[in-house]
Amino acid sequence: MGDPAGIGPEIIVKSLNDPQIYNRCRPLVFASAAVIASAVKLCNAALTVNPVSDISQAKFVYGVIDVFDLANISPADFEFGKVSAKAGNAAFESIITVIDFAKKGIIDATVTAPINKESINLAGHHFSGHTEIYAHYTDTKKYAMLLADDCLRVIHATTHLPLRVACESLSAERIFDVIALLHDACCQFGIPQPRIGVAGLNPHAGDGGLFGNEDAEIIAPAVAQAVEAGYNAEGPVPPDTLFTKAIQGKYDGCVAMYHDQGHIPFKLTGFKWNNITQSMDSVKGVNITLGLPIIRTSVDHGTAFEIAGKGIASPDAMTIAIDYAIRMAENA
Amino acid sequence: MGDPAGIGPEIIVKSLNDPQIYNRCRPLVFASAAVIASAVKLCNAALTVNPVSDISQAKFVYGVIDVFDLANISPADFEFGKVSAKAGNAAFESIITVIDFAKKGIIDATVTAPINKESINLAGHHFSGHTEIYAHYTDTKKYAMLLADDCLRVIHATTHLPLRVACESLSAERIFDVIALLHDACCQFGIPQPRIGVAGLNPHAGDGGLFGNEDAEIIAPAVAQAVEAGYNAEGPVPPDTLFTKAIQGKYDGCVAMYHDQGHIPFKLTGFKWNNITQSMDSVKGVNITLGLPIIRTSVDHGTAFEIAGKGIASPDAMTIAIDYAIRMAENA
Repeated sequence: MGDPAGIGPEIIVKSLNDPQIYNRCRPLVFASAAVIASAVKLCNAALTVNPVSDISQAKFVYGVIDVFDLANISPADFEFGKVSAKAGNAAFESIITVIDFAKKGIIDATVTAPINKESINLAGHHFSGHTEIYAHYTDTKKYAMLLADDCLRVIHATTHLPLRVACESLSAERIFDVIALLHDACCQFGIPQPRIGVAGLNPHAGDGGLFGNEDAEIIAPAVAQAVEAGYNAEGPVPPDTLFTKAIQGKYDGCVAMYHDQGHIPFKLTGFKWNNITQSMDSVKGVNITLGLPIIRTSVDHGTAFEIAGKGIASPDAMTIAIDYAIRMAENA
Repeated sequence: MGDPAGIGPEIIVKSLNDPQIYNRCRPLVFASAAVIASAVKLCNAALTVNPVSDISQAKFVYGVIDVFDLANISPADFEFGKVSAKAGNAAFESIITVIDFAKKGIIDATVTAPINKESINLAGHHFSGHTEIYAHYTDTKKYAMLLADDCLRVIHATTHLPLRVACESLSAERIFDVIALLHDACCQFGIPQPRIGVAGLNPHAGDGGLFGNEDAEIIAPAVAQAVEAGYNAEGPVPPDTLFTKAIQGKYDGCVAMYHDQGHIPFKLTGFKWNNITQSMDSVKGVNITLGLPIIRTSVDHGTAFEIAGKGIASPDAMTIAIDYAIRMAENA
């Protein structure tokens, strides 16, 4: 469900208002049924809500949204766009329940809607985000963030670090690991023999040592090791042409060395800024946590508190997140 | 002319094979007339070449390419795609002649075609590129590289440095200087009150000090100083949304902190990889040296030796480089 005070329930309803989805999977929403019913009204959708307490009660037909009803919050309990412990707790409970169902094999894949860190923490759950909650409850140590849309897939060797620290913390071992994670993920997406482009760190991938030596000393050996292990990897590729080549089909997946090296091209191809409303019109990114024992995809945007409850949120990212989850489950 | 063994002469001829250009400027090619005549043949263009030794002999009408004839190389003297001192010297002479004419005010703006560093150096001219030649012959100390296409303009606070060194060498003074250079350039492009977005260095522009302090300690003060000086600058903006916003019109120009922060989005919007031919189909970038006493724009691609002499080079970048030179001259 995500945080009920955000756009999560709304984009879930909008993305399930599509008969195609029901031909490809059996969606079950982990939420408070009252919140989802309220989101259906908000969207003026011709859908009904079927609250279930056991998966056998779900109908899995277009027109009915099956909700595993946690019954832990109602629309009267929160205000759109506001941080609250009650909303944070409801969001948290939907996450740990879906993780539990996935671990037991009752469901094949999980998709998450945005949560608010502050609300989660106010509710006494001290995590910085979904990824940490998933890692904790599945006891996972080695994982990585993959961003994916319909034309680009980027895994990150480092993420939330000062750029200077990211440069210093690159290691051949970590780069090899993320190449392997990316390869496995691409196979799960249904891509045979995925071609992986590994970015350099420095301008022109170092230009023969002229602009830094990490490309030759850390990245090249990691790529060589990956090739030896049978991965179809190439690099270090000059960072400023890698993504241009990838979106035209040269690579199925890219390895970025630091947060913005991957996020800049990703948000340039998948996001669309509206200069009149001064907000993002389209945010087509999916964030996938690789390395977990269960499948987890997520929208790559936040709760969008500023537009929550208005019925104008775009379900694009949720639709793609569901698509990736289906593909991963089909090829798991 | 650029290096005659590259695609320079070909893209010059193709871009001048357009009546519109002659309504907007009076183009004069600094080259060996024999090389340009040979490029006309290569392009199967219905154009003639008018070699002149004085600008008064130029016709400036569509259908005739006026060439200030340096008569320093003929098509028999070089091979397409090959490094040579003779070609390097011819390219070099065309550059210093055009600089000389611009300094004297005989011409209003200069546009350069790609050269080969190795050929230039073989000919005994020890420069690493156009920018250094222009800086030397115009005695310029403070300059910066601006990349521009039809939707994005990016100036760089640092360029060809290892990423780690780029992080360490950021200074508020340099950032202020490039904001000022970018502002003046945008005004020259005909943009009144240009809005300038300044990128952060770290993920989320540091996120309140969580991921590095350069954003708060170096970039923010430089932006504050620029605003105080009357520039319409904003930042540090999180690097991963700055360029998405800029291409949709929020900013007229962007300041990048390091080479790839600017080059990745620029090459993603302006370049187009062809995965069948395994080469770039379109390279719509223009490289403008700011801070010079004369106007200089250039294509942002190389000599493309691998396709030189085949007649398949795209003149897109040259056309945009000419357009930018015209706009700068009109508003100088």
